[in-house]
Amino acid sequence: MNTWLLQQEGFNKTNAAVDGSRFLCSNGYLGLRGMPEEAASGLFPAITLAGVYDQFADRWREPVNAPNCLYIQASLDGRSLSMEEAQGHCAKLDYRHGIYSRETRFGQACISSRRFVSMASPHLLADEYRITFLKAGVVTLKAGISTDIWDINGPHLFNFQHRTGDVLVTACLTGQKKIAVAAAQCVQTDFDAEESQSEDAAGVFRTIKKTVQAGETLTLRVFSGVYTSLDTSDPAQAALVCSQQARAAGFSACLQAHTGAWEEIWTRSEIALEGDDDAALALHASQYHLNCVAPRHARNMSIPARGLSGQTYKGAIFWDSEVFFFPMFVYTQPEIAKSLLHYRVETLQGALKKAAEYGFRGAFYAWESQEGGEEGCTNFNVVDVFTHRPVRTYFRDKQIHISADIAYALRNYYDITGDRTLLKDGGAKAILECARFYLSRANAHLDSDMVDFADVIGPDEYHERITNNAFTNQMIRHTLESALLLKEIFADQQAWFAELLQEMDYEQDWALLSDLYCRIRPPRERDGVMEQFDGYFDLEDCTLSDVRGRLCDPREYWGGDHGVAGTTQIIKQADVIALMAMLPERFTDEQVAANWAYYEPRTEHGSSLSACMYALTACRIGRLEEAWTLFMKTARIDVLGGGKQWAGEIYIGGTHPASNGGAWMIAALGFAGLQMRGGKLSIHPRLPRQITRLSFPVTAAGKNYRIEVTHAGGTITGL
Amino acid sequence: MNTWLLQQEGFNKTNAAVDGSRFLCSNGYLGLRGMPEEAASGLFPAITLAGVYDQFADRWREPVNAPNCLYIQASLDGRSLSMEEAQGHCAKLDYRHGIYSRETRFGQACISSRRFVSMASPHLLADEYRITFLKAGVVTLKAGISTDIWDINGPHLFNFQHRTGDVLVTACLTGQKKIAVAAAQCVQTDFDAEESQSEDAAGVFRTIKKTVQAGETLTLRVFSGVYTSLDTSDPAQAALVCSQQARAAGFSACLQAHTGAWEEIWTRSEIALEGDDDAALALHASQYHLNCVAPRHARNMSIPARGLSGQTYKGAIFWDSEVFFFPMFVYTQPEIAKSLLHYRVETLQGALKKAAEYGFRGAFYAWESQEGGEEGCTNFNVVDVFTHRPVRTYFRDKQIHISADIAYALRNYYDITGDRTLLKDGGAKAILECARFYLSRANAHLDSDMVDFADVIGPDEYHERITNNAFTNQMIRHTLESALLLKEIFADQQAWFAELLQEMDYEQDWALLSDLYCRIRPPRERDGVMEQFDGYFDLEDCTLSDVRGRLCDPREYWGGDHGVAGTTQIIKQADVIALMAMLPERFTDEQVAANWAYYEPRTEHGSSLSACMYALTACRIGRLEEAWTLFMKTARIDVLGGGKQWAGEIYIGGTHPASNGGAWMIAALGFAGLQMRGGKLSIHPRLPRQITRLSFPVTAAGKNYRIEVTHAGGTITGL
Repeated sequence: MNTWLLQQEGFNKTNAAVDGSRFLCSNGYLGLRGMPEEAASGLFPAITLAGVYDQFADRWREPVNAPNCLYIQASLDGRSLSMEEAQGHCAKLDYRHGIYSRETRFGQACISSRRFVSMASPHLLADEYRITFLKAGVVTLKAGISTDIWDINGPHLFNFQHRTGDVLVTACLTGQKKIAVAAAQCVQTDFDAEESQSEDAAGVFRTIKKTVQAGETLTLRVFSGVYTSLDTSDPAQAALVCSQQARAAGFSACLQAHTGAWEEIWTRSEIALEGDDDAALALHASQYHLNCVAPRHARNMSIPARGLSGQTYKGAIFWDSEVFFFPMFVYTQPEIAKSLLHYRVETLQGALKKAAEYGFRGAFYAWESQEGGEEGCTNFNVVDVFTHRPVRTYFRDKQIHISADIAYALRNYYDITGDRTLLKDGGAKAILECARFYLSRANAHLDSDMVDFADVIGPDEYHERITNNAFTNQMIRHTLESALLLKEIFADQQAWFAELLQEMDYEQDWALLSDLYCRIRPPRERDGVMEQFDGYFDLEDCTLSDVRGRLCDPREYWGGDHGVAGTTQIIKQADVIALMAMLPERFTDEQVAANWAYYEPRTEHGSSLSACMYALTACRIGRLEEAWTLFMKTARIDVLGGGKQWAGEIYIGGTHPASNGGAWMIAALGFAGLQMRGGKLSIHPRLPRQITRLSFPVTAAGKNYRIEVTHAGGTITGL
Repeated sequence: MNTWLLQQEGFNKTNAAVDGSRFLCSNGYLGLRGMPEEAASGLFPAITLAGVYDQFADRWREPVNAPNCLYIQASLDGRSLSMEEAQGHCAKLDYRHGIYSRETRFGQACISSRRFVSMASPHLLADEYRITFLKAGVVTLKAGISTDIWDINGPHLFNFQHRTGDVLVTACLTGQKKIAVAAAQCVQTDFDAEESQSEDAAGVFRTIKKTVQAGETLTLRVFSGVYTSLDTSDPAQAALVCSQQARAAGFSACLQAHTGAWEEIWTRSEIALEGDDDAALALHASQYHLNCVAPRHARNMSIPARGLSGQTYKGAIFWDSEVFFFPMFVYTQPEIAKSLLHYRVETLQGALKKAAEYGFRGAFYAWESQEGGEEGCTNFNVVDVFTHRPVRTYFRDKQIHISADIAYALRNYYDITGDRTLLKDGGAKAILECARFYLSRANAHLDSDMVDFADVIGPDEYHERITNNAFTNQMIRHTLESALLLKEIFADQQAWFAELLQEMDYEQDWALLSDLYCRIRPPRERDGVMEQFDGYFDLEDCTLSDVRGRLCDPREYWGGDHGVAGTTQIIKQADVIALMAMLPERFTDEQVAANWAYYEPRTEHGSSLSACMYALTACRIGRLEEAWTLFMKTARIDVLGGGKQWAGEIYIGGTHPASNGGAWMIAALGFAGLQMRGGKLSIHPRLPRQITRLSFPVTAAGKNYRIEVTHAGGTITGL
């Protein structure tokens, strides 16, 4: 079995949304959904641009999809070859090299193509398209830039300007911020043919017409460039040059540069798993999907919660970045981890603004962060399935752990890499502002020293507006500790640090940090189980199937006061267990075991963020069979195309980078037990019986290592 | 036009629930719904007992309905006379004397009766029942004690024991607390007839059988007594004696004692209104309905939100008592006002317990208070009309203004009556415990002196879990002020007061009261309009009809995050305006005018508590036409049988004592402008053009006065 290959026979239109994500190609600059070249918007083709957002009317703000510049439609004797008439179809995704290929058999012709989004050149897409004829006739190939784009809350592109010629060019503007988006396409053929060009509302195209013989094969190579005015002042020209240069270099050379870049990525990050091929494939798939959406072209970008697989979740940056994407990158490609955090450092203004909007000081990061840290999360994130009315949700206002999650990653970056530059370059300031936010958000009392954090939402979003969420409170303490620790980290640069505090007008707040740290109310415990929030134990204690049985509509939202879970102890995802997975050194094995046993049966795992946390903690307490099951659930999500597709009436499909990162975390941090603590790298192997060997590279404190783990034990070898 | 008479022709079974309330007879000990004697449970007959509660299974706890001891069913030639076959029907309620009468014409007979619940003897009910025959035949009159009772969340009565004999007796026990409930019935006839007695599952009855001639009239007088084991150790015997003694005295004598008691009530409380007979009738009706449910037989009882008209709202005591019932009583029958407040003083333990349950100190009074101050409000007060699932509401946990409302009335009682005994006898302690609750509930900040009251619900219940509700915050300040004022009120009894503080372990808290008073965040204002709560102005500003147009089901609950109003500026009832009506001296006319103009168009008036507050403030700012409309809406509610009947799937019908009290308030405090401030009684007449004269008695500081108001001015005359 090839553990690098996703292969699917047949074509089912109703799965197009899921399959487009599973067969995604991306290089972090853009994502190209895995649909055939001729796919029209009903099959959800898309080239989703990273970091380019637009709002149409009063709809949700979301990322912009570029014009479809790899569009090719073949016709034979005037009749279009359409997927609906295909007699056979096979799609493949080579995870190792990021190459999507297809073979489709029609009655009179076969199409086979392979394409990639260049990992070596972020603006380049290339496609090698072959068509073989089973009978003679007249073929036309219409290739060009289609403006028939899938948008969830669009349209976003206006003022289209097309150019014909050797290179086709389409330039347009986004509606809200007038960002110019340009795509160019040129072609190379291995045959002579009559060519004409046209432009209309559907795009700009060249039509190649040729009389062919049975058995003849034509090869068309397409080179496309995509630029926006966020990249350069003349994106149309840049796209044109990009495509021309690629054609001049040739498809093979471009492909070689691309695969070389991927080889380098795998050298730095691949976890080789032996003993179970399905697991090895799933782990490759997970690493592929997370690696391919990393912002390698930038130093201050992060990764949306559904990667670049479309516009789901507004293309926004969630805590997934810090908690689920960050670990693989910081241990394998720390420059990418740094970019994710630079994004937060550079969007601090947005976080300060958001805190002020709610009457607080410090940094309250966006729950769904778009460019500049702008909050993409609206007050209405769920549509009631009975009334079709939007429902007020509180993710935006109450999920205050987001700032702590960011501070946590900033500190982890330093702890694991030993690199202080990020802290110096704004990271310290961000941590201090997060701490200041919590100072200001704390509920103190006139008649008691205790401090509560009231009216919050924890990771388990089904319980809204609760008090003293154990996860939130402990993560806040961690933030305060990280802030206080900065003084030690910069002990040799006291003057700089003092100046920073002064410049931030922080002296008074600094004095309060340790005070707050000591006064946060500790969570209640019962039989060693930490109460998820004040009053959680008093909620109805029933089973998942009880709760599921109360649904009146399968698409109902489970959370909030109207949801079936909100008034019960059933939770959406790891919460107390997430805390124990993220701060393992603060809890004993006994605590983890007691909480795991209590919370796991009460967890719906309704978020792709859940299984990973339970798996990590399961490894620690020796529940290896459960860890294995959760690992496979996590790692296979984008192989199988699983996960929820709907929340209420909102589409939430796409790839699952948090699960992808989670798969790496379970393998490396869970099965191998990798940790970097006090500047010391260590492993604590606990391999499930299904795995015979794990081998992977790690970078820590600027040094490279290889980890090898078998059932006999493990080694760390410096490279 | 007789402005003391409610009269209705015809009988419509579908209006039975509403009509039973409109024609209510009550004496504060029990309420007898206005249905014909033969009514079975489908017509919702009920004798609702004040202060006797029971819970069946896990249903809502609600007041107990006694066995129906005025039951009479006539049959002619073996055929029951049923309302469904009535050819004519007229029901009357004499508001002046609390007498319900009916005349019903059947094909072969006419029934006419009059009955009352004795205002002179709280356990007595009497009925004079006449039947005239239009043709000869054999009549049977089945009279007795029926156990066919209307219960909303019952059954509540068990272990029935019936006794036959001269006096029929039924004794039974409530399910939860085994309270004995007994009813007795004896009769007097002006004719001789064959009589038999029977008992079965439906009750205990005597059957009188007689052959009658056309034109003949039989008169049956029924005397019933009702007692519970909360009144006496042998309620069955007491009920028996009660009915026998009444029979011995005779119907006329009993009636005379009853009407005499009513005359006394009217002498002390009647507002005579001239100029508009509909208004005079409505005011009489309002005063009747509030006077009739006053707990004259007790010194420590209050009045449920739907009076004694049934089991709606769990028969519980709401803030209605202090804010809407209290004013009429304190100015006309202060001993009743004192009883309402004694109820709160004596249920302080329940309030201390509730506060502790939520982790606070001091007194957090029940939102729906039952006996002993027990909280009758559940966490689920609304049923979703789409899913039929209960919805988590926050009235119980978040409507913290209840304690301030009680402290407000306790202080008003002293201010208006000059009587310190209530304060001395526990009232001061209650105020101090309310203040302590707010000390403990306050959200202080580590980095600011401001104090917020977060996560509350104000009078406008459509907006749940808000911060800094203007009404709540200002009423809390008033509570703190009242607590601080106690020291002055008892300046001549310093030792006692100091001992009280010591006994309450209050010294430290006392020092914090003025601190909190100064630190509560003042409300934001915009163009002179006080923001109802933090962020209210940012909500969608739309019209009532916009919001109504979004309903998918007319019975939908409007509030909370799923309700059509929750995310808009549409409010259920007066909130800022209630504050301005209740603490008029704290606001200028300009402030009242600006807030009235802003909030009134945004108010649904979805609660019967709303119109009164708007009317009171309208009087002040000269909006007399609006005041008149709101007065009529308020005063006529139980004449017309208006008001909402449903909240979600929950029946909320019954009488509206808060509106009844509100009608008195509008007339006396609004139109006449009565006020008692600094020990001085004054009036500020502002009669709407429809009224030519108002004349009413008032008691203040132990003296009696008569107020006369015309368009020429007004006078206060000491009596």
